[in-house]
Amino acid sequence: MNGAESLVRSFVGAGVDVCFANPGTSEMHLVQAIDAVPEMRAVLTLFEGVCTGAADGYARMRGVPALTLLHLGPGLANGIANLHNARRAATPLINVVGNHALYHIDYDAPLTSDIDTLARNVSSWIKSDSTAATLASDGMAALQASLTARAGSAGQIASLIVPVDACWSDAQGVASPLAPPAPPAVGADRVQAIAAQLDGDSVIVLDGAGLSPEAQVDAARAGHVSGARVVFSTFPARTDGGPGSPRIDKLPYFPEHVLASLAGVKRMVLAGAATPVSFFAYPDMPGELVPEGCAVHTLAAGDEDVAKALADLADALDAPSVGYAVHEIGSQNPGTGRLTTRSVAACLAMRMPEGSVFCGDSGGGGAAFAPTQQAGSNTWLNLTGGSIGQGGPAAVGAAVACPDRQVFALLGDGASMYTIQALWTQAREKLDVITVIFSNRTYGILETEYRRLGVNEVGDRAAALFDLSRPDLDFSSLAQGMGVNGVRTDTVEAFDKALTDALEAGGPHLIEALV
Amino acid sequence: MNGAESLVRSFVGAGVDVCFANPGTSEMHLVQAIDAVPEMRAVLTLFEGVCTGAADGYARMRGVPALTLLHLGPGLANGIANLHNARRAATPLINVVGNHALYHIDYDAPLTSDIDTLARNVSSWIKSDSTAATLASDGMAALQASLTARAGSAGQIASLIVPVDACWSDAQGVASPLAPPAPPAVGADRVQAIAAQLDGDSVIVLDGAGLSPEAQVDAARAGHVSGARVVFSTFPARTDGGPGSPRIDKLPYFPEHVLASLAGVKRMVLAGAATPVSFFAYPDMPGELVPEGCAVHTLAAGDEDVAKALADLADALDAPSVGYAVHEIGSQNPGTGRLTTRSVAACLAMRMPEGSVFCGDSGGGGAAFAPTQQAGSNTWLNLTGGSIGQGGPAAVGAAVACPDRQVFALLGDGASMYTIQALWTQAREKLDVITVIFSNRTYGILETEYRRLGVNEVGDRAAALFDLSRPDLDFSSLAQGMGVNGVRTDTVEAFDKALTDALEAGGPHLIEALV
Repeated sequence: MNGAESLVRSFVGAGVDVCFANPGTSEMHLVQAIDAVPEMRAVLTLFEGVCTGAADGYARMRGVPALTLLHLGPGLANGIANLHNARRAATPLINVVGNHALYHIDYDAPLTSDIDTLARNVSSWIKSDSTAATLASDGMAALQASLTARAGSAGQIASLIVPVDACWSDAQGVASPLAPPAPPAVGADRVQAIAAQLDGDSVIVLDGAGLSPEAQVDAARAGHVSGARVVFSTFPARTDGGPGSPRIDKLPYFPEHVLASLAGVKRMVLAGAATPVSFFAYPDMPGELVPEGCAVHTLAAGDEDVAKALADLADALDAPSVGYAVHEIGSQNPGTGRLTTRSVAACLAMRMPEGSVFCGDSGGGGAAFAPTQQAGSNTWLNLTGGSIGQGGPAAVGAAVACPDRQVFALLGDGASMYTIQALWTQAREKLDVITVIFSNRTYGILETEYRRLGVNEVGDRAAALFDLSRPDLDFSSLAQGMGVNGVRTDTVEAFDKALTDALEAGGPHLIEALV
Repeated sequence: MNGAESLVRSFVGAGVDVCFANPGTSEMHLVQAIDAVPEMRAVLTLFEGVCTGAADGYARMRGVPALTLLHLGPGLANGIANLHNARRAATPLINVVGNHALYHIDYDAPLTSDIDTLARNVSSWIKSDSTAATLASDGMAALQASLTARAGSAGQIASLIVPVDACWSDAQGVASPLAPPAPPAVGADRVQAIAAQLDGDSVIVLDGAGLSPEAQVDAARAGHVSGARVVFSTFPARTDGGPGSPRIDKLPYFPEHVLASLAGVKRMVLAGAATPVSFFAYPDMPGELVPEGCAVHTLAAGDEDVAKALADLADALDAPSVGYAVHEIGSQNPGTGRLTTRSVAACLAMRMPEGSVFCGDSGGGGAAFAPTQQAGSNTWLNLTGGSIGQGGPAAVGAAVACPDRQVFALLGDGASMYTIQALWTQAREKLDVITVIFSNRTYGILETEYRRLGVNEVGDRAAALFDLSRPDLDFSSLAQGMGVNGVRTDTVEAFDKALTDALEAGGPHLIEALV
C-alpha cells in the first residue's frame, strides 16, 4: 500500500468518506487511491471554490468533515474565498493539497509556490512535510484538529499539503482516528453569576454551538423566565427552525440597525458568540456594537461547551421547559403579478417541503428566513464570512450530505457568478437543489453602500461598476449550458409554477426571479 | 482631495490608466475616485480571476502595468491563481486591495483576514499600512517596484493593501512617478567567454527579455554563425513571430521529451531563462533537464539586460544580420469533415488577420503555434505558471490593450470553466475576442498523466475525475448566457464558417470545436 492509499483508507476508516475534488497531475496517486477505495465518494467540481464551499455545506449538515482535493498553490487559492467563509462558520474541514516532492521544490518549476502562506490565511492546522510513513497518521491528526474547538470556533480548517513522493512511496498501513478533546465545561460560578443578573434589560446572543436546536430551546427558556431577549448573531453558520421552535431573530446587518436593535440593553450575554461588531469600518461609527453602559458577559466562548452552559443557565433559573415564544404556523400570501423579493420569499415558504435546507448568499435570499420559520421545519446555512459565491457550493455539499432533504440555493445575481460552476456538479450528481437567482441586475449592496458615503447622484462611471446589465446575464442559458434546467420568471404566477414544477420533477433546477 | 483620489490621479499621471475591477464596500471611495477621474478606465469583471488574468494580458501587450481593484482577502484570493501565472510571466502588475481601517482589524469582523500572507504568495512588493498622507507615494513606489527587474524576472507583482481610512481621509495631493532602475548590463568578459565556446553542440534558451523580436534576431544571428541551436523555454510569456521572423521552437513539455530534444547538447546558454526543469516530479526522472555532461552558462539572468547581452553576443561573433533561418509563408490545409485539433489550428492560421494575438491555455491551442508562424505576424501569450483558466482573462486584457488587433483565446474545455466569466466582460466591453473551446469532454492532460503512472486500465471512479461529460458542457449556451454569440461545430466546414462569420462581424464570439 502506498502513502496515498494509506491516507484514503484511514480517512474512510474514521468516517470521512466524501471528497470534493478538482485534482491535477500532482494528485494522480490520490486519484488512484480513491479508485481503489470504493467507500470514498469523490465529487468532481469544475472550480475549487465549489469544492471548498461544498465541503463547508456538507460539514455544517453532517458535523463530519469532508475532504477537498486541490492542486498545489493555485488550486488552494481558488478555494480560499469559501474556506474563509468556512473558517468563520467554524466548520470542520480538511484540505488535501497536492504538492511537488519536497526535493523538487528547489527547482522552482512553474507551479511551485509557498503553499503554506496561502493555507495560513484560513487554516488552524497545517502540515506540509509528510512522508509516506507519516501520511496516514498526519491525516488522522488533521481530522482531530478539524474537530477540535479553539477560541471562537467549534471546528476548524486543517490543511494537509502532501508531497507527491509521500503518496507514491510505500506506507506502513492505515492509521486509527484520534478522539478530539471535548470542549471544557463552563464552571457553575460563571453560570450562577450570569443567572443572577439576567433580566428584561438583557440580551443573550447565540452563535456556534449555541445555535443547535437544544441550545436554542435552553436559551429561550432562560430568556422567557428572566425576561431577557434572545438573538442570533447576524450571520449564524446554521440555524434549525420552523413552527414550534423558539422565535429568535437575527441581529441586523448595518451597524446603526444593530445599535438601534440593542438600544436600552444593559447586559449582553454571549453564548458561543463574539461581541457584535460592524461588518465594515465607517467614519464616525463605532466598531464594537455595544450600547453605551452595556456590560458584556461571556457565558461560554466558542471553544467551551456552549450548549451545556445554556442548559445549566436555564436550570439555574429554574426555567420551565415550556412557555417561551415559538414560531407559529402562518399562511403565506405571495400576491400576484410583478415579482418582488417578498413574493419570492412567500412562494418559497408556501411550497417548501418539510425539512428543506436553505443556503443563503447575498441578495434577496435573507427575506425568506422569516416566512420559512412559519412554514415548516427548515435549516438555514448562512454566509458567514462575507465572501459571496458561497450559496451554490454550500447547496452542493448540503445535498450530498442530506439526499433526502430538498435544498434551495438563494443567490444574488452578482454573487452567483463567482461560483456558477456549482450548477454542473449539481447536474452530474443529480442533486435535489433548486437555485433561485434574485436578479436585479446590480451589485445592489454596493449601490446602497455607495450612497452611504453621502453621494446622492451616482456618476455614470461609478454606476457602471455596480451594474450587471449591459449585457444582461441570462441565467436559464447558463444553467442549460451546465445541464441544469433553467427558467426565467418575472411574475408571481410564473415563479410559483416554475417552483412547483421543479419540486415535482426533482433534481437540479434554476429559476431566475426578475425582482 | 482624499487619499483615494490622490492615488488614482497619481496613477493616471504616471500612465497607469486601466483598472480591472471587482470592488466591494471597502473600495467605495476608490470607486468614487475613479468616477471623478475620467482618464482612468475601469473594466468590471464578475470574478477576480478575470481581473488578474486580464491585468496580466494587458501588461504583456503594453509593457505598462494595469491595476486590479480587489475586495479584501477573499477578493485577492480569487485572483491569486492568475497572479501566479503573472508572477511566472514576470509581468508588471499592481493589485490595489481594499482593507478595513487598521483600527477596525482587531474587531475581527467577518471579512477580516491576514491579507499580507495571501499577497506574499505572489507579490515581490507589499505595503499594507498606508495613510492618506502616504497613499499616493505608496502607489508610485508600487509602480516602480512592478517595473523593477529582480532575479529571474523582468517585472513583478506589487500589492498595495489599502486601509479604507487612508482612502477617505484628506491627502496631500498627487505624487510623481519614480523611475525604475535599469537592469545592469552583462560584462564583456562573460559575453566573450560564451562567444568563444558557442558551437554546433550548443543551445541558447530564451525567456523573459530574451523573447523580444530584436532579441530573437540577435540570438538567431549568434546561433546561425556559431551553429548553436536557439529555443524558447517551454512556456514563454510572450513571443512575437510570423513569416520573416527567426524560426525558433519551444522546448517540449514532458521531461523525457525535453531530454530527448536536448540529447547531445554540450553547452546550454541561458538568456533570460532558467535551467529547464521538469514541470512535476516523477519517480526515476531527474528534476533538472540538462543532458549529462552538458555545461550550463548564464549569458544574462532575468534581472540583467538580456537583450543587450544577446546583441553583444551576436556582435562578438561578428554574426551577419541576415542568413539565419526564418519562418516562411506556408499554405494551410485544414481538410474537410470531422474536426480535429490539427484542422482547427489550420483554420485559425488560414483565417487569422495580420497581427493577431493568441492567448493559449491548456488544451489543444498550442497546436496552432507552429501553423500561425507561417501565416502572418502574431503574438502568443502563453500559460506561464500552469494554473489553468488564464487564456480567457488574458484575452480580455490583450484586447483592452490593443483594440486594433484581433485576439483569440484558445482554451481547453476544462480550463475555460475556471474563469468562464471572462466572456461577460468581453461582451460588455465589445472586445474583438474570438474564443475557441477545444472540447474533448475531458481533462485530457490528467488522463495522460494517470496513464504515465503505469496504469493501463483506468478505473471508473478515477475516470470520473477526468471526465467532463455527464453532463456535456454546452458552451454556446454558456456564451449566450453572458451576452456572447456562441456556436458549436464538429466539422471543418462548420468551424471555418463560424470563424469567418465571427471575424466579419467583429466583437466577441465563442466557437466550441468538438475535437
